[in-house]
Amino acid sequence: MTTATTKVTVAFQPYNKTTRVPPGMSLFDAASWIGLPIDSACGAKGTCGKCRVRILEGQTGITAVDRKVFSAEELENGWRLSCRVIVQNDLVCEAPKLMGNPKAALMGVERHIILDPNVHKVYLQLAAPTLVDQRSDYRRIADALAEEGFDVTATLAALRQLPQLLRKNGWQVTAVVIGQELVAIEPGDTRGQCYGLAFDIGTTTIVGALLDLDGGIPVGVQAALNQQAIYGADVLTRITHAMIEPGGLKQLRNAVLASLNQLIAALTDQNNVSLANIYEVVIVGNATMLHLYQGLDPSAIGVHPFIPVIESATIATGAESLLDILPEARVHTLPHLGAYVGADLVGGLLATGLPQKDGVRLLVDIGTNGEIVLGSAERTIATAAPAGPAFEGASIQDGMRASAGAIEAVVITDQTVRLQVIGDTKPIGICGSGLIDTVAQLYHKGLLTASGRFIEKEQANRDFHPDLAARLIRDERGVRAFVLARADESGLDRPIVLSQKDIRELQFAKGAIASGIEVLMRELGITARDLVEVYLAGSFGNYINPWSARRLGLVPLVSVERIKAVGNAAGEGAKIALLSFRERNIAYRIPAIVEYHELSGRTDFNDSFVDLLRFPDFL
Amino acid sequence: MTTATTKVTVAFQPYNKTTRVPPGMSLFDAASWIGLPIDSACGAKGTCGKCRVRILEGQTGITAVDRKVFSAEELENGWRLSCRVIVQNDLVCEAPKLMGNPKAALMGVERHIILDPNVHKVYLQLAAPTLVDQRSDYRRIADALAEEGFDVTATLAALRQLPQLLRKNGWQVTAVVIGQELVAIEPGDTRGQCYGLAFDIGTTTIVGALLDLDGGIPVGVQAALNQQAIYGADVLTRITHAMIEPGGLKQLRNAVLASLNQLIAALTDQNNVSLANIYEVVIVGNATMLHLYQGLDPSAIGVHPFIPVIESATIATGAESLLDILPEARVHTLPHLGAYVGADLVGGLLATGLPQKDGVRLLVDIGTNGEIVLGSAERTIATAAPAGPAFEGASIQDGMRASAGAIEAVVITDQTVRLQVIGDTKPIGICGSGLIDTVAQLYHKGLLTASGRFIEKEQANRDFHPDLAARLIRDERGVRAFVLARADESGLDRPIVLSQKDIRELQFAKGAIASGIEVLMRELGITARDLVEVYLAGSFGNYINPWSARRLGLVPLVSVERIKAVGNAAGEGAKIALLSFRERNIAYRIPAIVEYHELSGRTDFNDSFVDLLRFPDFL
Repeated sequence: MTTATTKVTVAFQPYNKTTRVPPGMSLFDAASWIGLPIDSACGAKGTCGKCRVRILEGQTGITAVDRKVFSAEELENGWRLSCRVIVQNDLVCEAPKLMGNPKAALMGVERHIILDPNVHKVYLQLAAPTLVDQRSDYRRIADALAEEGFDVTATLAALRQLPQLLRKNGWQVTAVVIGQELVAIEPGDTRGQCYGLAFDIGTTTIVGALLDLDGGIPVGVQAALNQQAIYGADVLTRITHAMIEPGGLKQLRNAVLASLNQLIAALTDQNNVSLANIYEVVIVGNATMLHLYQGLDPSAIGVHPFIPVIESATIATGAESLLDILPEARVHTLPHLGAYVGADLVGGLLATGLPQKDGVRLLVDIGTNGEIVLGSAERTIATAAPAGPAFEGASIQDGMRASAGAIEAVVITDQTVRLQVIGDTKPIGICGSGLIDTVAQLYHKGLLTASGRFIEKEQANRDFHPDLAARLIRDERGVRAFVLARADESGLDRPIVLSQKDIRELQFAKGAIASGIEVLMRELGITARDLVEVYLAGSFGNYINPWSARRLGLVPLVSVERIKAVGNAAGEGAKIALLSFRERNIAYRIPAIVEYHELSGRTDFNDSFVDLLRFPDFL
Repeated sequence: MTTATTKVTVAFQPYNKTTRVPPGMSLFDAASWIGLPIDSACGAKGTCGKCRVRILEGQTGITAVDRKVFSAEELENGWRLSCRVIVQNDLVCEAPKLMGNPKAALMGVERHIILDPNVHKVYLQLAAPTLVDQRSDYRRIADALAEEGFDVTATLAALRQLPQLLRKNGWQVTAVVIGQELVAIEPGDTRGQCYGLAFDIGTTTIVGALLDLDGGIPVGVQAALNQQAIYGADVLTRITHAMIEPGGLKQLRNAVLASLNQLIAALTDQNNVSLANIYEVVIVGNATMLHLYQGLDPSAIGVHPFIPVIESATIATGAESLLDILPEARVHTLPHLGAYVGADLVGGLLATGLPQKDGVRLLVDIGTNGEIVLGSAERTIATAAPAGPAFEGASIQDGMRASAGAIEAVVITDQTVRLQVIGDTKPIGICGSGLIDTVAQLYHKGLLTASGRFIEKEQANRDFHPDLAARLIRDERGVRAFVLARADESGLDRPIVLSQKDIRELQFAKGAIASGIEVLMRELGITARDLVEVYLAGSFGNYINPWSARRLGLVPLVSVERIKAVGNAAGEGAKIALLSFRERNIAYRIPAIVEYHELSGRTDFNDSFVDLLRFPDFL
């Protein structure tokens, strides 16, 4: 368990806004954290001199950069560059308002994101060298970039394009700067061609988005199956494959790379974008997916005490990453909170802004592991609950993934059962959201008890419409089950049923997640009535009926309109991190701010779990 | 021409030592500059907290790191980390004496170098993870390194060795840290195997040295011909090859890489060192040689106004550099001062310490271009003089490189001529040092006039021993010449002679260098009597007879014992930069401190040049 860090308070005037951040954060990032944008042209690298603030109260140093930017009088008056002020104690500062309206977009869950990517294309019109100006080609470019606020070093690849490129193009070129690195020089003015990619590597599906970094406009979105599927359906079988099969790790890495490169080819082809104009990529995914993508051995994630190789964010070049993009591009992964609360959840936090908001919110991403975050700007805590594969249909008799033929929603009326089937065909199985609906409806109608047992046949015949009563059967093995689709209603040649055993599986899954939520709520000392919102995330979470989730006790008892499906929040977070270096810095800070609580071995989790196998008695 | 920077004064107590440095230098580097070592474990990266100084007078900021390391009282008393203090104005500080005696070595020209390489091998005995300590493998290592003062990020390659390596070796491993990067994890305790390479890439010869970074001990030295020779003997023909031949740049790059890798193989084989234990490399050479090695197009160096692609120091990985060493190793080149005053000269400045010493000194590295530096700690200036190929034997009738059969030294007695031949065989030609000796002796004896003409035959017969007089001949074309070896004394079937035309070639070469020296001396406002020492550097400079050089006016008229051959100073400088991060930082600062003066197009150079074609009238 991570213990809470002692935080310090930073107040911004004239906004009268206050935030509490862990010591060590920059004042610039602290402002971004509460959505208060401070001007910056260099990406908070201390070179452009724009992110000025005036310290009104509290102790800060004066850095060498401050001395360059400010006069002695200004320093005396408390002026500092906010990106160079490392907050160590309580501070009050004055932050000048942004000049003009910065480009912004609504992204994620109603988040207002200032578009400020880390890739800058700068068009340069340089003077040709002479005997009295013998600066090297690189120095000439670096000096011109310094005037624009960039303090760069160059990659060898960029240098190798020189000197012909400069001389053939009359010293008019576009410099591509990523962060503080000059990665390419392009002939003429190419500022219009500036792209990036955001990927969410799911265990089953990979979603990729191509974005115009200049305008912050999504150019295309595509999904593809993760080609690792042939080595196992879930995280644990893939880890096992990597551990046991010689060359298994490499196979898995190649499979996910093939999927990513297939998406890159499709996105760029269809939108007529050159691979050489893709400069930055942000990738999220669970820890195992990112380990496999990076060629890192995930073995220790799979076994007690569940240890990743690295939880930090990483940066690699396009070449190192083996993605089919500019070899000097930068490929970022967001950090993980723990082995089972990964960068996908960090993406979700960016998309929802949960740890930056006032009022306690709950974010649940349901999969084999339920990833759970609870908190507010005051304090945010997270955990992973071992839900097992029920929600993905794997341990359910007629379970299946959410694809054509899956029952995805169910309503039980007084007379009968109404099914919603993906693809509008006859049903061939039931997926997670259908499972939750069915059980919630059965329980709500009284066909299931709070302990999860089907009622007796006699009681059904007495209290329910014959159609419904007839659906309560015993199968050939004597196991009780509920018929969702009779053989004549089914796309198979047999009925589709939900068995007593399936219900037990669901109870274990929901019990794990509900217990995880309860442990966190106890830790924060709150009850359901304190919850402002509940976010259901993930491609699965997006389809869960909030009413059903609440009826089963999967989420706390809050009014239904407070339960929101937020879609692929992870992928949305990746896009936000791609389009805004401010938000990416926030993502880097999340592991220091959000406390991770490990549930394995906790007795309070096990106690809750047994209690929470039951469905809530009242609604 | 670079103009002199306004410098600031830094005084160190209790040493009572003062230095003047350009603003922007760290206090730590300023101390290194005058050979005053301040403690550091992290390589002046601000992480170990050891480089403490107390500011007694002058303004400095307080950085975030200072706040972490020092108490409020200490800060109040002026304590700061010297590596974080960027000098912007005059300062007086107190620097605590080093604890114990740091490992040091005498290197270069009597320089006392503290051995402190940038590669650190740290043996770690880690605790195994548990449910209450779920730090990732990387975090566990990074935390342990932080305790030793290292704040690292990891390469993917290092991470890919985990987690098996840790678990198979009982959590006892050696971390390899270069600068702030964790580049490798090795099983068990491998601190004893820690090597680096220093290369001087000459146009003709490449010299490589293998050093034990732990002990600072040279393990082996080898030289090889630069395989680029097949594409041209000198810098200009190689540039032309790169410009004109399709794929020419690649051919040249591959040739020098082949030479380097051949040296690496020989050095490691013979000394039983693993390629994977070579962690750092420092390379010097002239700007063209380093451009070709790095695959950078040198075209613009070869034509007016003589512009390199980059003059800054560079860092590449072993993999990027294509050297056969650890792929994650770091390969450094030192910076250039200009297109024709390259990293080799910067190496020479490290080896001699010229710009750090009191008293004006002159360093001359003689080749196709004479590289000339003049100055002291007060002010140092540099230039390149176009000497042409005479000293390398290329435009001399019987000229040859300094190899077996070359006349390398000559004494003319009253009766005859005494030759010293390389390899103790019959002579087959004359190399640069022999050429200088011959002309100096001829002039000194009176067989040549101050204008460089042979005396008339009649005068020779009258005033000189018959043996000497007989050596003054006219060849078949009527050109006057001096016979150094008669056909019967020669290794060829004909005499070896020095012609009147050869003497003119030498005069042009020496005139260029002497004029370059004169321009610099005028710039500093000094005369020969102000010179404390004259250093002759380069494999050629090493063999020049100081008396002869002075007699011809190649160097100023100072007493002979002040003229010192300093051998391969460039290579020595590379070794120093490899073994001491303090000295490497100094090398990085040299371009900001040493002013480069371009001679092309200067009328004072051309005026001097015509005057200095003559030999000095008196001695």
